[in-house]
Amino acid sequence: MSQMTDSKTAASPEGVVSSLRWRYATKKFDPARKIPREKWEALLEALVLAPSSYGLQPWKFFVVEDPAVRARLKEASWGQSQIVDADKLVVFAARKGFGASDVERFVSRIAEVRKTPVSALDGYKQMMLGVLGRPQLEAWVARQVYIALGTFLASAAALSVDACPMEGIDPAKYDEILGLAAKGYTALCVATAGYRAADDAYASQAKVRFPRAEVVEII
Amino acid sequence: MSQMTDSKTAASPEGVVSSLRWRYATKKFDPARKIPREKWEALLEALVLAPSSYGLQPWKFFVVEDPAVRARLKEASWGQSQIVDADKLVVFAARKGFGASDVERFVSRIAEVRKTPVSALDGYKQMMLGVLGRPQLEAWVARQVYIALGTFLASAAALSVDACPMEGIDPAKYDEILGLAAKGYTALCVATAGYRAADDAYASQAKVRFPRAEVVEII
Repeated sequence: MSQMTDSKTAASPEGVVSSLRWRYATKKFDPARKIPREKWEALLEALVLAPSSYGLQPWKFFVVEDPAVRARLKEASWGQSQIVDADKLVVFAARKGFGASDVERFVSRIAEVRKTPVSALDGYKQMMLGVLGRPQLEAWVARQVYIALGTFLASAAALSVDACPMEGIDPAKYDEILGLAAKGYTALCVATAGYRAADDAYASQAKVRFPRAEVVEII
Repeated sequence: MSQMTDSKTAASPEGVVSSLRWRYATKKFDPARKIPREKWEALLEALVLAPSSYGLQPWKFFVVEDPAVRARLKEASWGQSQIVDADKLVVFAARKGFGASDVERFVSRIAEVRKTPVSALDGYKQMMLGVLGRPQLEAWVARQVYIALGTFLASAAALSVDACPMEGIDPAKYDEILGLAAKGYTALCVATAGYRAADDAYASQAKVRFPRAEVVEII
């Protein structure tokens, strides 16, 4: 696919802008309305394909379907109703203690996908290991996870799927409820996805952004 | 716009996935090929519209056009050629010392856009001021900037515009060269955008991602 100069399915500039203008942080979801299977599959694939530094993917995405677990997570999210009402709930988790074994796992995967001997990737591996010397490695990992969050939100908007990114969660409780520590991950934030309720008052409010001249400067 | 149940210009699930599969971190840009004006306008608008916590937008995007400044930034970027060869260079910068005045600026903007008296927004303002008590406020600001980065990269891919996110920069030198400290911002990362060179060897390499079963877990 990558050889193509243009993607076959390019969106229009107006389409991209109108999707992003259409989206908003949905406060009230319609619990009855489900995301069509092909759209949800595309959103999961967007998570898999999300960009990260070197492609290291220092993350995992936990999709919580179990209503009982959802109810407990709602309590760990200041009681926000989206956690149980949205069709889908994705917990964005960062790899804990990201280290040399994670880089090695990625190198093995490159070797597998590109049919290259691992030994041929040693220079690249050494370069990636340099990441581990960053003074704030955990912060770096978290930033990568937020690229995935941005990718997910933009993709949901493109598909006319409503979503709500949520940082108002208790990550320690999330980790406990989902058993994330034992899996080697820690929760950072959540995205709920589905369709807005007809009476979500927030849907009709004008979007508030600073004027372009205040956030974009040409040098 | 927000009242609509569906965005008028929804993309197809295959379109979203194939765009994200098509994109890659472009290593070599074609210096002669420019992004059409309407696509670049849409990408700037995607930056303006990018989601952030409460919509606080604790960021600024510096688009560097001046070739002499670009040359200096290249030196502050390990000599990576994308900095000068890509049609566009966006420096993603975080608000330094994000504080009460930033929240107040946003509240004023809400009042302006929604034609509401500032006094009616006091409860909301107090809630947003709570953000300032976060133990790692700078890290929180940085995460928001990375949502914008993800939004930009996904939008570029949707428009078949090549891009390369770059963390391999010296932020302190960027701040100095662009005078960011005096403007109240600090550089975090860069995205270059334009079109791949015909001989960028990376374009034809298979994309490497972990299998979905390793990065998505259903609970």
